Amino acid sequence: MAATSAQRASADANGNGTHAGMAAQVGAPTNPMATALLTDQYQFSMAYAYWKAGKHADRAVFDLYFRKNPFGGEFTVFAGLEECIKFIANFKFTEHDISFLQSVMPMCEGEFFDYLREVDCSDVEVYSIPEGSVVFPKVPLMRVEGPVAVVQLLETPFVNLINYASLVTTNAARHRHVAGKSKVLLEFGLRRAQGPDGAISASKYCFMGGFDATSNVLAGNLFGIPLRGTHSHAFVSSYMSLDEIPNKALRSKDGSRVCQDFVSLVQEWLQKIQVADSLGGVFGDTNQSELAAFVSYALAFPSNFLALVDTYDVMRSGIPNFCAVALALHDLGYKASGIRLDSGDLAYLSIEARKVFRAVEEFNVPGFGRMVITASNDLNEETIDALNKQGHEVDAFGIGTYLVTCYSQAALGCVFKLVEINSKPRIKLSEDVAKVSIPCKKRCFRLYGKEGFPLVDIMIRESEPSPKAGERILCRHPFIESKRAYVVPQHVEELLQCYWPGRSDKPRAELPSLDKIRSRCMQQLEKLRPDHIRRLNPTPYKVSVSAKLYDFIHCLWLNEAPVGELQ
Amino acid sequence: MAATSAQRASADANGNGTHAGMAAQVGAPTNPMATALLTDQYQFSMAYAYWKAGKHADRAVFDLYFRKNPFGGEFTVFAGLEECIKFIANFKFTEHDISFLQSVMPMCEGEFFDYLREVDCSDVEVYSIPEGSVVFPKVPLMRVEGPVAVVQLLETPFVNLINYASLVTTNAARHRHVAGKSKVLLEFGLRRAQGPDGAISASKYCFMGGFDATSNVLAGNLFGIPLRGTHSHAFVSSYMSLDEIPNKALRSKDGSRVCQDFVSLVQEWLQKIQVADSLGGVFGDTNQSELAAFVSYALAFPSNFLALVDTYDVMRSGIPNFCAVALALHDLGYKASGIRLDSGDLAYLSIEARKVFRAVEEFNVPGFGRMVITASNDLNEETIDALNKQGHEVDAFGIGTYLVTCYSQAALGCVFKLVEINSKPRIKLSEDVAKVSIPCKKRCFRLYGKEGFPLVDIMIRESEPSPKAGERILCRHPFIESKRAYVVPQHVEELLQCYWPGRSDKPRAELPSLDKIRSRCMQQLEKLRPDHIRRLNPTPYKVSVSAKLYDFIHCLWLNEAPVGELQ
Repeated sequence: MAATSAQRASADANGNGTHAGMAAQVGAPTNPMATALLTDQYQFSMAYAYWKAGKHADRAVFDLYFRKNPFGGEFTVFAGLEECIKFIANFKFTEHDISFLQSVMPMCEGEFFDYLREVDCSDVEVYSIPEGSVVFPKVPLMRVEGPVAVVQLLETPFVNLINYASLVTTNAARHRHVAGKSKVLLEFGLRRAQGPDGAISASKYCFMGGFDATSNVLAGNLFGIPLRGTHSHAFVSSYMSLDEIPNKALRSKDGSRVCQDFVSLVQEWLQKIQVADSLGGVFGDTNQSELAAFVSYALAFPSNFLALVDTYDVMRSGIPNFCAVALALHDLGYKASGIRLDSGDLAYLSIEARKVFRAVEEFNVPGFGRMVITASNDLNEETIDALNKQGHEVDAFGIGTYLVTCYSQAALGCVFKLVEINSKPRIKLSEDVAKVSIPCKKRCFRLYGKEGFPLVDIMIRESEPSPKAGERILCRHPFIESKRAYVVPQHVEELLQCYWPGRSDKPRAELPSLDKIRSRCMQQLEKLRPDHIRRLNPTPYKVSVSAKLYDFIHCLWLNEAPVGELQ
Repeated sequence: MAATSAQRASADANGNGTHAGMAAQVGAPTNPMATALLTDQYQFSMAYAYWKAGKHADRAVFDLYFRKNPFGGEFTVFAGLEECIKFIANFKFTEHDISFLQSVMPMCEGEFFDYLREVDCSDVEVYSIPEGSVVFPKVPLMRVEGPVAVVQLLETPFVNLINYASLVTTNAARHRHVAGKSKVLLEFGLRRAQGPDGAISASKYCFMGGFDATSNVLAGNLFGIPLRGTHSHAFVSSYMSLDEIPNKALRSKDGSRVCQDFVSLVQEWLQKIQVADSLGGVFGDTNQSELAAFVSYALAFPSNFLALVDTYDVMRSGIPNFCAVALALHDLGYKASGIRLDSGDLAYLSIEARKVFRAVEEFNVPGFGRMVITASNDLNEETIDALNKQGHEVDAFGIGTYLVTCYSQAALGCVFKLVEINSKPRIKLSEDVAKVSIPCKKRCFRLYGKEGFPLVDIMIRESEPSPKAGERILCRHPFIESKRAYVVPQHVEELLQCYWPGRSDKPRAELPSLDKIRSRCMQQLEKLRPDHIRRLNPTPYKVSVSAKLYDFIHCLWLNEAPVGELQ
């Protein structure tokens, strides 16, 4: 993913190396509220303390990583990088910001605010794993290097922009995994998401994680995600009777003729299917307001007729009303799209509906049996898994609440830890070994085995030579002495790429389009050994450090930890 | 809460009754992304179908309500109203929006887009319960009336803006309840929230629900919420030794003298407390990089010295280092603020820290024992409750992840249901009785008993006379025939107020300041009978309908429901 020389040349022409040039290239964050003030108060307190001690420009390296995969799984999809790069490209305090900061920190010297006025991210370098990659605990997703005071200011917005993005992308990927490749997945979460951009970013990241479309019009507009949606229960119940349809005419699809009374045509079909032997005579009187709503919708969208069939009673009213309208449309050359089920026993109802659709084929309508059945009532990984086990005839799932709020685990715990300052490695200790940070500025590699699967991720000190394909390397668990293994990788992939070179002349990796990131995500998940992805008791993927880094960690640890005294 | 005549006069002068005039008065939504495109695709499909059927201007009434209180509780705090009113005040499609809609709905006639170009909310009326009120299932939080196509377009953004706002406000109120009135509650959720405005609105609504301050600087700027924050573990570990402090001088608080070597003063104090009998000689060598960080922070903020004491070891290093710096500050007339604990056994550590602070009082520092102890490690309702049961010495809680993501229940299920169209009541049926909607345009009242507690909420048809204080009224469960009770209210409060009169000349209720809404919320929670609020097995609050509405619901239900046929 390193920039090609052509990209590099074009970047230089656009002012790479100058902050304004890079900002113009990268664009602004999706949410205009993601500004330099979107950070924790303590980042400013620390910035001032650093500044007072003359330490604000000390060169610091921070790692952004998480400690545990979400949803009881053994993989995570990394997302949010593009928004972080847009954030730093536009990182600057306005005079309004400065005045506000002065008002809340009146004890700080005026020169400090002059310093803040000048701050931008031209001295910052960001290395990152490409967005849409499959990632694992402890391995840095991003490595941010720069003046300690500036990089601290970035901590909160970076973690905010990565945490939810990665969580919801992973959730979407898990839903795709359980639904299978052949199903259509629709994100319907706008109304239940945690605020407007909870919803907007959910739409973006669910698409990235493998969804096919969204109901969110603004997200469709911002990101080019396909839109889907038909009508609601309110639409159905807003009609009272067929008398409410003033214009009953419908032109045939090929334009050759006009049916002057589409309503009568529908009623004829309804009578036919009500007495049809092939349908077993199961249909009695259907709800007329529902029929009116379906007819009205069909007149508006004859080529895209999709009906919500559960407002009154799916099998007794919704399905026969739908079939009558679909058959009338068929007479005029149109093909109905399908139905949506939003309540009840979705396995049973989808199977029964499919039987009816197949039976309707006998009215000389080949293909009617393949009518799309969409289901959408409070679905999640578990309910889709249960549907699969029971057997069902659902083609498309519309998923909202559980998907976008990540209901089963509403937060990912990304952290941002200092690993080096002024070239001196730092470690964060904790009583809990899982919370001890891995010190040093590091490089990270994914080692692939003979069958093309990734075997292990390894972190090494920056000064060490890279692992090479065909060369044996010892991979050690970072904290448990007895866990280690030799690996001869078939292929070696360096994980951290330079996405923000700041003032340096390092080439900048491109920020790919959403479609490309989505493809990367799909490919990465396919490359993973299936036992890491399965829902039940997945196998943990191995994450390791080099022998040299292992020794260094434990030396530093002993050095920093106080010796206890039992009393 | 009805507008006073003065407000009304001022509103008229500002152009009340004209849409532009009201928009100017009300202001824009907090998140600039909350625009007219922020809705579900199917709202546009329906709008087109209504328009094609000439039905788009039919006068519809929708109720926004929820079906179940969150978090296993029996109350909810209603929030998000102001954002909804700002949304409709600014509701308008731009030419950019129209072009986009044309591109995704190419099958629609051009005149439809001319219609959309003209759409605004001047024909819409919004009645609502005041923001910050305690509310209960089934009672409409908002009643939205207007042309059916327009009101449908509002469904998704309204539900989005209310759902999370009410959920997180309720969560904050629950945290306040368990922590008690005397504790300071700090919202620290920015980094773990679901996106930037998940965080920004969390800060606003947690303050509304009873928090005292936030760490989120942008939220402080936007809403005037007090800000809090000191330093992180990275700050502590960024220091290596006391040699890193270039300027060791500190002027005394009264300005009368300068201590040229504050570092030595701190070291003297450290030695004193290390050998002090009153401290039992528990302190050995402390971590010098931690000490350097504390000294540096104290030199920057001598009047606001608050230290994070758990980077290395709370009792062996953090506490003695803190005390040494605090005592040195005391020599110069400053009063240290306190400590923050971010890991370990918070009950035990806070108690042990308090013992040390009290013992330090013997160095002629009265009041040192009352040093503020803040705790902040993955706290939630349960952990605070557990701390209370164990006993602890924490004065302030910093709460993040569990609070802002509403981890224990990440979504509230507000819905928006059609209850009347062209003055004809509509009902939404469901196999699940809990999902049947209550039809008719309604008025809602809260009836108060002798002791000043609310007894029951009652919904009546718009045409019925209001309940009156001192007059007996029959309150019926909306769906269960046998549940009913006579009530003689001491006081009657009408719940739904007009917040958006549209073109009508109805007086508009004011949108109060955030502080006022917060006070309302606190007062309403205090007025509630304690058994409705308690965490364990709370008593459900009663919600009822008038006898007349009860009869009407059941008549309409029978009318609409198909008669089953057992086979």
